Order: sequence, then structure tokens, then C-alpha cells
Amino acid sequence: MRKRVVALLTDFGVEEHYNGVMKGVILKINSDASIVDLVDSAKSFSIMDAAFQLWASYKYFPKETIFLIVVDPGVGTSRQAVAVKTKNYFFVGPDNGVLYPAVSEDEIEKVIKITSEKIILKNRNGTFDGRDVFAPAAAYLSLKKPIEDLGELTHLKEKYEFAKPEIKANIIKATVLHVDKFGDVVLNIKKEHLGGIKKFCIEGKTFEIKQTFSECSDLCMVYGSSGFYELVLNQGSAAEMLGLKTGDMIKIEVI
Amino acid sequence: MRKRVVALLTDFGVEEHYNGVMKGVILKINSDASIVDLVDSAKSFSIMDAAFQLWASYKYFPKETIFLIVVDPGVGTSRQAVAVKTKNYFFVGPDNGVLYPAVSEDEIEKVIKITSEKIILKNRNGTFDGRDVFAPAAAYLSLKKPIEDLGELTHLKEKYEFAKPEIKANIIKATVLHVDKFGDVVLNIKKEHLGGIKKFCIEGKTFEIKQTFSECSDLCMVYGSSGFYELVLNQGSAAEMLGLKTGDMIKIEVI
Amino acid sequence: MRKRVVALLTDFGVEEHYNGVMKGVILKINSDASIVDLVDSAKSFSIMDAAFQLWASYKYFPKETIFLIVVDPGVGTSRQAVAVKTKNYFFVGPDNGVLYPAVSEDEIEKVIKITSEKIILKNRNGTFDGRDVFAPAAAYLSLKKPIEDLGELTHLKEKYEFAKPEIKANIIKATVLHVDKFGDVVLNIKKEHLGGIKKFCIEGKTFEIKQTFSECSDLCMVYGSSGFYELVLNQGSAAEMLGLKTGDMIKIEVI
Repeated sequence: MRKRVVALLTDFGVEEHYNGVMKGVILKINSDASIVDLVDSAKSFSIMDAAFQLWASYKYFPKETIFLIVVDPGVGTSRQAVAVKTKNYFFVGPDNGVLYPAVSEDEIEKVIKITSEKIILKNRNGTFDGRDVFAPAAAYLSLKKPIEDLGELTHLKEKYEFAKPEIKANIIKATVLHVDKFGDVVLNIKKEHLGGIKKFCIEGKTFEIKQTFSECSDLCMVYGSSGFYELVLNQGSAAEMLGLKTGDMIKIEVI
Repeated sequence: MRKRVVALLTDFGVEEHYNGVMKGVILKINSDASIVDLVDSAKSFSIMDAAFQLWASYKYFPKETIFLIVVDPGVGTSRQAVAVKTKNYFFVGPDNGVLYPAVSEDEIEKVIKITSEKIILKNRNGTFDGRDVFAPAAAYLSLKKPIEDLGELTHLKEKYEFAKPEIKANIIKATVLHVDKFGDVVLNIKKEHLGGIKKFCIEGKTFEIKQTFSECSDLCMVYGSSGFYELVLNQGSAAEMLGLKTGDMIKIEVI
Repeated sequence: MRKRVVALLTDFGVEEHYNGVMKGVILKINSDASIVDLVDSAKSFSIMDAAFQLWASYKYFPKETIFLIVVDPGVGTSRQAVAVKTKNYFFVGPDNGVLYPAVSEDEIEKVIKITSEKIILKNRNGTFDGRDVFAPAAAYLSLKKPIEDLGELTHLKEKYEFAKPEIKANIIKATVLHVDKFGDVVLNIKKEHLGGIKKFCIEGKTFEIKQTFSECSDLCMVYGSSGFYELVLNQGSAAEMLGLKTGDMIKIEVI
């Protein structure tokens, strides 16, 4: 029988034992668990960045994959710890918006607030729910046990959604959804917003829309792998060139 | 039958093939091995840092997990390569102190100096015992073969222990055990050292002890997930603010 | 029956979901796949760096391992996407030279251009062949299906080979093949080039050849784990001291 994959997305970093400890907790509960790293080192504390990366990734995983998300600046506060069953997947993490773009796209079927004392580790510390709450919950789901056992039925309180671009005539005010390792800048601009156009201006300078990274010897825009347009500078950093980071706005004139 | 997990903790980094090659060596010996990354990129050459992270992690893993530790500045010298059987686990790595806090806490049952020519790779290079000595030894243990086959009985020579805080009246001279990715500073201060107090001073400034990171808009101390107190600055770096790194001392006045 | 390991070597980095998404794609096709990270975060766009790391690693893996290599600055261009069967292994990646040192050493048996519409994901984006082309091809091979099904027979077009050192009398012009996390500098100098000598000069200063890193309190040369000599500064960075990076040349006088 097919195993359920457990996929980890955290901002804990590869310098730390935090991701590793969560794997230990999972394997202690389900010695046969199939664990993969989705993102080891998301931008610290950035719900926006992790929400984007989760949303861009989840659909490529096998059905019933359990996504274990720990980007959790509000750990220990009253934010809920939740497990969400969607049409095709499970998501375990804080109710701070990070899950929302993915779970709402895949259609939420059930949200459970993780409260069961059988699940949560004894001596829960309050600063590391990844280890004490989320990892045991994900491990429990990987055993194909009922999600209801994790706690009580609830609803998501934080409903973060990607900003929509503001479009007036040929001016697009776009938001940066993600800056990747290479300095490529993912904008909230989709195919429908740029039908047919081939060129654009930023601060009076004209650039072109291209098909591949290798054509971008100067700054250009490319239709990216997530389904959003990206500002790209081949083998250089568009983010650095333009001084952009996740959450920033940029005005683009299409021509 | 339950597999023994092999958990890797090294300072090799994710830019390098060193961790990957060790996995190759393990899988060549035990194609069915269950390998997880505990720490990919511990502080280079820092026995203190790796010893802390191993100690903070090991107890969360399933019994009989084999910890493969390669933070090994003395590779090629006369430092022993060892495999340690403790009450609940196995540890494979250099005898340079890095294993000591964990193995002594879990109670050492047997220490073997890895010398068997059947285990050590031919053409051992002398600069990469992770690949040539430790990975094959860990793989051998993952096959549930006897630890005695790895070499000869010995004892650990390096007995690194966490410094104890120096306490005089209301002054604690604490040592930094670890600085994490977020800049949180783990001190060698335990619950017993701070019974009941709520405030503390550093260099004349007063700060508070809090329950969660999100309360720490100013510097504060939080009882951390490892069982030691941590200096924390929410969504900022306490380490940077105070200029602290692993091994540093800091004077704290409790009030 | 023994599984075929899938080993990932990419420049995608641990901050990104790109490696994770590829694992999702593989597990969707082969839920029982055995996936390991070989290198998560190779030098961005550096074919030279990845070619070296692959070559230094592959031979330590079990026979029939499938190496999935995505260092692919030419993604979307006419560079071929290939799967290579060698004497002992499989390699999947771009035909840009990155595979060449490894596959030529292990002897190429068959090269397939990946073109099958049954393999390539629908809606191939053109900027992320790791996800859309290479991961599905590797997953298919991990099911032990015939490599011929991936597309049409071809030959490798890019034949990158490590530079040979230029030797005139006692002067070696060496090339930097790799700089590792620790700042160790791998040169294209083998045992045969340095038979018997014990000292060398760089810019008029004399240094020694040593056996272990810990002897290198000053700069020295050590016979490294890959079979090439390395410039090393114990617990410091030889690369920084000498201002060297991958691809640079350095003049060494042996004495």
C-alpha cells in the first residue's frame, strides 16, 4: 500500500538541528515514514515567502502527501496549531496564513485544531511547536489514522491571499511574491495580465519579455515555472539590480 | 522488523558533495538504509557547537538510531575514530569531545576504536574519514551487525562537557553554547539557576523573562526548547545586538 | 530486489522549493523511490563546479544509481536534455558538459535525448526542466523501465574535460577545479605531477606539502579526498588568502 509522503517546509535552516529533530520525532512515531525536505531554509519569519513556495509546490506531490510547514513567528501565542484536510492533501502547521493559498486552491475539507494530549509531546516547550506539536501530528497522519483524533474541529482564522496587481491603463503596480536564490523576482502578474505584449518599462527604461533565462543578458521578464512572471537577469541578480525584496511593490509600464 | 535510522550531523555544508558521498557509501553497503540529515552545515570546525546540537537532538530519535557525526578538525591525526554504544543509541565519529555530552547522558556501554580493514575503505585518504571510516562503520551498524566487528575495545579520551555557569550572589557568568540561524543565543543557564525571577540586567540595562518569542520586541530571555535559557530578540538577532558567538561569556545580573 | 537510488545534484539551494518539487514529481511517478541529496546548493550556473563534484562523488554510490543533475544555465535553449547509461550508472541532466567527466570516466554506453511526450510533464514551462523533464525521466529509470523509452538515441555534444596542468621544468600552471565550504582549493594536480617533492613556492614564498589538515597552520598542500592536491589553511580559508575561485589559474614552483 502506498505510503503517505511527509514533506517539510521550514525556515529553520541547514545550520540547525531543528529540522532534524522533527524528523526524529516523526520516525519515532512512524518508523516507516517517507520524509522529504521541500524547503529547509525559507526566509526567516516570512509567511508571505513560505506561503508562495508551498503554493507553487504542493500540486506536484503525490496525493495524500502531508505538508509539514513551520514558519511560525507566533509560536506560543494564541494562534491555532492546525491540521487541514484538502481535496487531495494534508497540511499541518500554524494558522497564520502560510497554508492559505495552497489549501484554499485545493479546497478545504476539514480543519482540526491540534489539541489532543495523546499527540502533543509531554513537556511541550512553547517555543518549538514544530517538534512538540506539528511533527507528531504529521507522523500520526502518515500512519493513516483519522485526522479527527488530533483535536477539535475549527476553521482557519488567517486568510492570507496573494495581492492582486493594480492595473490602470498600461501601468501595472505589481507586488514581489518571492525572490529566489538566483535573484529572480517573482511578481504577481499572470498570463492574463500581459496578453500579447512584448516590452515593458521600469523607471523609463525599456526591457523585453523573453522565453528563456539565457536570453536575458539585460533585465527581462520571463513567464516563470510557478505561473507568474519573473524579472530575470541571466547569471546576475534582478533583485539586486532593482533593489527588490519579497513584499515590495514595483511600477511596470507595458508597451 | 524496524530499521535503524542513520542520522548525519556534519559541518560539510549543502554546497558540497561531502554529505552526499557519505550517503552513497552507506547505501552501497546497506541499500535499504534509512538516512536522515540531522544537521547539514554545523559551524565549521566547532566541536562545541556540534556537541550542543547533537545533545539537544538525539533523545528525540527512535531507539537504536545511529548518529554519524563528522565535525573533525583533527582528521588524519592520532585522534581515535570511534563507534559508541549507549543505553539507547549508537554514535559514530571522531573522539574529539563532540560525542561526549550526548553519550555520557545516555550512558556509555561500549566504545570501539574503528580499525577493522574490512570496514575502512581501501585507499583511505586521511583527509576524509567521514567517507572512508565513519560512513562504512555506520552502514555496518545499520545492518544490525555487532559493533565489536568494527575494531578494538577502547575508552573515550576527550571528555568535553558544557561549562557550568559561575554564580555569585545575583551575578551569573554564563557561556554561549550555541547561536542559532535566527540569532537566538543559547546560554548554559537552566531552570534551577533562575527559580522565580522575572527580570535581569546586562550592562546596566534591565530586560524581562518571557514565555514566547513574539513577546520579545526588546531583548528578553526565554526558556528554550533544549532546556537552556536563550537570549532572544523577536524577528531580530540577539547575537548581533550583543556581539555574542558560541563560546563567549556574558555577565547577567538577576533581579 | 534492490532499489535504484536517485541522487540529486543541483544549484537550486536550500532556500528554494525547486529541489523539493523535483522530489514531489519523482514520488508521484515512483512512490517507492529512494531519493538522496548529493549537492543541494552547488555554485550557481557553474558547470565546472558541478562537473567536478559529480565526478568526485559518483563512484561511491551503489551500481545503477541515477544521478539527477540540474545546473542548467541554458534551460529552454537548444541544448539537449539527456539520459546517459554508463557502464555502472545512469545520469540525467542537460548536455552542457556537466555530466562529461563522470560519464566519460565510467564509459558511455548509450545517450538518449529526452523527448518522449509520455515522460515530459504537460505544460512544460521552459524555465524549469528539472521539474518538467529531468525529474520525470529519472523517476522513470528508477522504475527500471528501458532508457530507450525516454526519447531518441543521440550523442553528447558538450565534452567538457578538466584542464590539464601546464608543466615547464619546475613550474606548474594549475587550474582551480573547486573551492569548498572551508576555503580549501582543489587544483588539477595529481600524484604523478608531484612525485617525491615536499615543498613549493607561490609568489616567492615557500610552503610545505603535508598529510593532514591539522598540520597546515600556515598554507600547505594536501593530497585531497578526490585524488587531486588541495591548497589548505587549517581552520582558515586558503581561497581567501590567495584570492582564488573556481576556474582561476595559479603558478606553483615545486622545489
